[in-house]
Amino acid sequence: MNLDLSLYLVLDPVQCGGHARALEVTRAALDGGATIVQLRAPEWHKRAWLELALDLLPLTRRHGVPLIINDHIDVALAAGADGVHVGQNDLPPDIARKLLGPQALIGLSVSNAQQVDHANPLGAMIDYVGVGPVFDTPTKPDASAACGIDGLAALCARSLHPTVAIGGIQLHNAADVKRAGPGGIAVVSAICTAADPRLAALRLLESS
Amino acid sequence: MNLDLSLYLVLDPVQCGGHARALEVTRAALDGGATIVQLRAPEWHKRAWLELALDLLPLTRRHGVPLIINDHIDVALAAGADGVHVGQNDLPPDIARKLLGPQALIGLSVSNAQQVDHANPLGAMIDYVGVGPVFDTPTKPDASAACGIDGLAALCARSLHPTVAIGGIQLHNAADVKRAGPGGIAVVSAICTAADPRLAALRLLESS
Repeated sequence: MNLDLSLYLVLDPVQCGGHARALEVTRAALDGGATIVQLRAPEWHKRAWLELALDLLPLTRRHGVPLIINDHIDVALAAGADGVHVGQNDLPPDIARKLLGPQALIGLSVSNAQQVDHANPLGAMIDYVGVGPVFDTPTKPDASAACGIDGLAALCARSLHPTVAIGGIQLHNAADVKRAGPGGIAVVSAICTAADPRLAALRLLESS
Repeated sequence: MNLDLSLYLVLDPVQCGGHARALEVTRAALDGGATIVQLRAPEWHKRAWLELALDLLPLTRRHGVPLIINDHIDVALAAGADGVHVGQNDLPPDIARKLLGPQALIGLSVSNAQQVDHANPLGAMIDYVGVGPVFDTPTKPDASAACGIDGLAALCARSLHPTVAIGGIQLHNAADVKRAGPGGIAVVSAICTAADPRLAALRLLESS
């Protein structure tokens, strides 16, 4: 599936307000131009992840947009999702690739130059890196220290992989983040908690 | 791999005191007669699960004892473990079976008659059911209501699968639990926090 990181929705169904509302938010975000969707529900058991992923796939497929599963390779396999996103403490990318096959999209979180240097030689083992957090965010209390706009620019320049910036990105800072040169921006609350998620996606995509 | 539920160690590496101590506890418990080991580390990221599972396998294999992974089918696949144990809210047993193949050992938690009645028609899709919690336990704050000794006896009699009792089982109540007729007893703290885990396993196995 085609990889376009321009506007990466990290869908937190708890932030959205549950399964049904997460579907509505996704439908609206896709109408607004979201180019890739990741399901991330750390508070949920896997059966609820699976049920939501199975309901999301018809929506993302209709838009030709990949559905990525955070962390849980088994959920991705069970749902037939398009790939996974793994962090530095999750199962390593080579195992994700082995379990999911050559067609899967695999993303890896990187937070500093050392992690970028470890990711670079992975080549086609991974499809992109998520760079951040750009700003501190209450969503992930266990996240690494924020790299800021200048740090983001340095890490994106250093990476040999396509990059997507993540962490605290909102409409008011999206243009600054984009000028740092990532391949796209990833947002959670900026869309999940927006009163009008379609408009939020549209504005995030157009901000420059 | 042969399934003997007599003494089922649920290995919580945090209760043990970390990776290294979890290996010592397992080695001792196997020497004391533990017949099956499940890795369960809800606080840990998956890379730590994988590393511990890979270090556990030589120990369990030497004793011809299966190593089961709680919940995470992807960790089981990555480590080459012998099976998984899933709860009612985890990925369903048919998906576990499909992903792990016919040789894997698959266990399912059941807490009441309705769940036993749903498990019974699964036949060889699952290899055993974990019945409980028998007693209330602080280890799983989200667990179902305790079934007690009489409830355990009724659920074991109702089940068409091999059964293992779990939840609050300690040396002082192990004999009572066994008289309710399960195929075996599963313990967490009774071995993980024992001063002498080998002796604890030995006594749990011999208690009657």
